[in-house]
Amino acid sequence: MEAIKNFEELKIHLGNQDKRKKLAVANALDSHSLEAVVMAVEAGFIDAYLVGKRSGVEEILNREFPSKLPDIEPFLHIVDVEGAKEAAEAAVAMVRNGKCDLLMKGLVNTDVILRAILDKEKGIHSVGNVLTFTSCFDIPSYHKMIFMSDPAVIPEPTKEQRIMMIKYCIETAQKFGVSRPKIALIHSTEVANPKIRFMQDYLDIMELYRHGEFGDVIMDGPIDIFLAIDKERGEIKKIQTPVLGDSDILIFPDFSSANVFYKTAQTLGNAENAGLLYGANSPVVLTSRSDSTETKFYSICMACALV
Amino acid sequence: MEAIKNFEELKIHLGNQDKRKKLAVANALDSHSLEAVVMAVEAGFIDAYLVGKRSGVEEILNREFPSKLPDIEPFLHIVDVEGAKEAAEAAVAMVRNGKCDLLMKGLVNTDVILRAILDKEKGIHSVGNVLTFTSCFDIPSYHKMIFMSDPAVIPEPTKEQRIMMIKYCIETAQKFGVSRPKIALIHSTEVANPKIRFMQDYLDIMELYRHGEFGDVIMDGPIDIFLAIDKERGEIKKIQTPVLGDSDILIFPDFSSANVFYKTAQTLGNAENAGLLYGANSPVVLTSRSDSTETKFYSICMACALV
Repeated sequence: MEAIKNFEELKIHLGNQDKRKKLAVANALDSHSLEAVVMAVEAGFIDAYLVGKRSGVEEILNREFPSKLPDIEPFLHIVDVEGAKEAAEAAVAMVRNGKCDLLMKGLVNTDVILRAILDKEKGIHSVGNVLTFTSCFDIPSYHKMIFMSDPAVIPEPTKEQRIMMIKYCIETAQKFGVSRPKIALIHSTEVANPKIRFMQDYLDIMELYRHGEFGDVIMDGPIDIFLAIDKERGEIKKIQTPVLGDSDILIFPDFSSANVFYKTAQTLGNAENAGLLYGANSPVVLTSRSDSTETKFYSICMACALV
Repeated sequence: MEAIKNFEELKIHLGNQDKRKKLAVANALDSHSLEAVVMAVEAGFIDAYLVGKRSGVEEILNREFPSKLPDIEPFLHIVDVEGAKEAAEAAVAMVRNGKCDLLMKGLVNTDVILRAILDKEKGIHSVGNVLTFTSCFDIPSYHKMIFMSDPAVIPEPTKEQRIMMIKYCIETAQKFGVSRPKIALIHSTEVANPKIRFMQDYLDIMELYRHGEFGDVIMDGPIDIFLAIDKERGEIKKIQTPVLGDSDILIFPDFSSANVFYKTAQTLGNAENAGLLYGANSPVVLTSRSDSTETKFYSICMACALV
C-alpha cells in the first residue's frame, strides 16, 4: 500500500474498499454531524445507524437532505431511542455487540458519552487503556500527513500515557500506509536538560525506542518544530537527526503546546484536520461543536481507515 | 502615530526618523550579522560601532560588501578590541556610558555576552529586571503585527516574571503605535480550572488587569489561539471575548508552547519575525545562528523602534 498523503487520497482509498463500515451515531439529532455522516454515506464507505428519537432524526433528514435521500436511504438506519443518555448507551451497545464498527458522538455531551464508553459492564473500554486524542493533519505546505497527540484530553501525560499516545500514532500512521513512521518528540530545545519538564520522559522513551519497544519506526527527540517538519530551517541548525523535515508523527510535551500546534496549523497553515478519541475498543469520532463539517467528515474517514 | 502593521511599514517608519540610532555590535566578526547591520545602515537608521579585531572586521567588510562601502563607510566605526569576551565587555560599556543606544550580539556565545550584560559593576542590568525574550511577527495571513513572549529564555515563568513579560510586550506594541493593545493569555481551554498549570497565574493576572495594573489595554484569558487570532473559527466557539480574532499580544503558558507557536508560525504560516532580549538597560539583538539575515535585520529594526 502506498502511503496516504492527504485527505483527498484518503477518500479515494476508502472509496476503493468493498465493504462499508457500520457507524453508530449517538443521538443523531445534530444537523452538522448528520451532514458529515451523509457525506460519508454518499462517498460510499459508511453504513449509518442513527440512534435517536425517530421523529427528530427523520425531521432533520427530510429538511436538510431531501434530494439526497432516495440514493442514500438504503444506508441510513434509524434506531429509535429517546433521550441523549439512552441513545449514547444504545450506540455504545451496538459497537460492543459487534453490530457496528465505529462510534460517533451526536447531540450528546462529551461526559455523557464518555460515561457510556467507560461503563464497566456495558461499555467499550478495557481497564488500563489510555483514553487520548490523536489528530491527523493535511497541511498544504507539508508533503505528507502529520499525526499528532494530544491537543485535548491529557493535560500532562505521564510516561506510561505518553508511550500509549506514541503507539496509537504509530498504529494510525501504519494504517495510512506509512511503512516506517518518523516520530519527533517535540520540545523547545534539543538540549536534553532533565531539569526541563518532560525531558526525562523523552530520554527514557528514546531508550525504550533503542531497545525496540516501538517496532520498525524512526524516532528522535527532544527536537524542535524546525528540525521535525522544516528541512530548510532545520538544516541551518546543524543538528543531525534522522527525521529532519520529514516527520510523520509529532508528540508534544503537554496539551497546551500540542493545542498551540493544533490551532496554529489550522489558523496560519490552512490545515485541514481530523481527530479521534483512542483507547476505547473502537475509534470514537468525538468532534466538538466548533469543528467544521469537513473536520467531522475527515474524522469519520480517519476512523474508517483504522478498522 | 498610525500603528505599524508589518515590517515594511516599520522600515518606512524608521527611515523617516531624522537621527540614526547608535548600535554597538559585540565582536563583529560574523558575516551574517554584519550583513544585517549593513542593511540597517543602508536603510538610513543605524550608525554602527563594530567592536572586534580591526583586521578581521575590515576583511569581512572588504570581502562581502566592497561595492557598498563607499556609501556606508561614514556610518561604520570599527572599535578595535581583540577577543570575544573583551569585545562583548567593550560593546556593553559603550551602551552603559551612553555612547551607543543599542547592543547586538556578533560572534560571541550567548552566555559570554549575558555575563557582560549582567556584570554588577560594568553591566547594563538593574537588579530585579526580568531578562526575557519578546518576539514580533509579521504574518501574511494576519492583519497586523503580533508580539509574543517568551519562546526561548524562561522555561516556566513565575507570576512576577509573567507580569514583566506582559509589560514588555505592551511597551513594545505601544512603541509600534498600537494605542490600546489587545492581550490574549493563551491556553488550550477557556475553562479556568486552577488545577491546570499556570491557570491560577492567569486568573490572578486578569484580576490585576481589572484593577488597572497594565494601563489602557484590553486583556482576556485563558483563551485559545482560535479566539485570539482567528475571528472565523473563534466565533464558532460562541465565547465572548473583547480580543476576538484581533489580538496584538500573545502570552503563552510556558516556553515550550510559545516555542511551538514561534516556529509553527514561521514554518506553516510563512511568518517573518524579529526578536529581542528585554530587561537590560537597552534592547539587545540576540539572534541565533539559525536566524535568517532578514530576522537579524528586522530585529535591529525592532530595537530601533524601542529607543
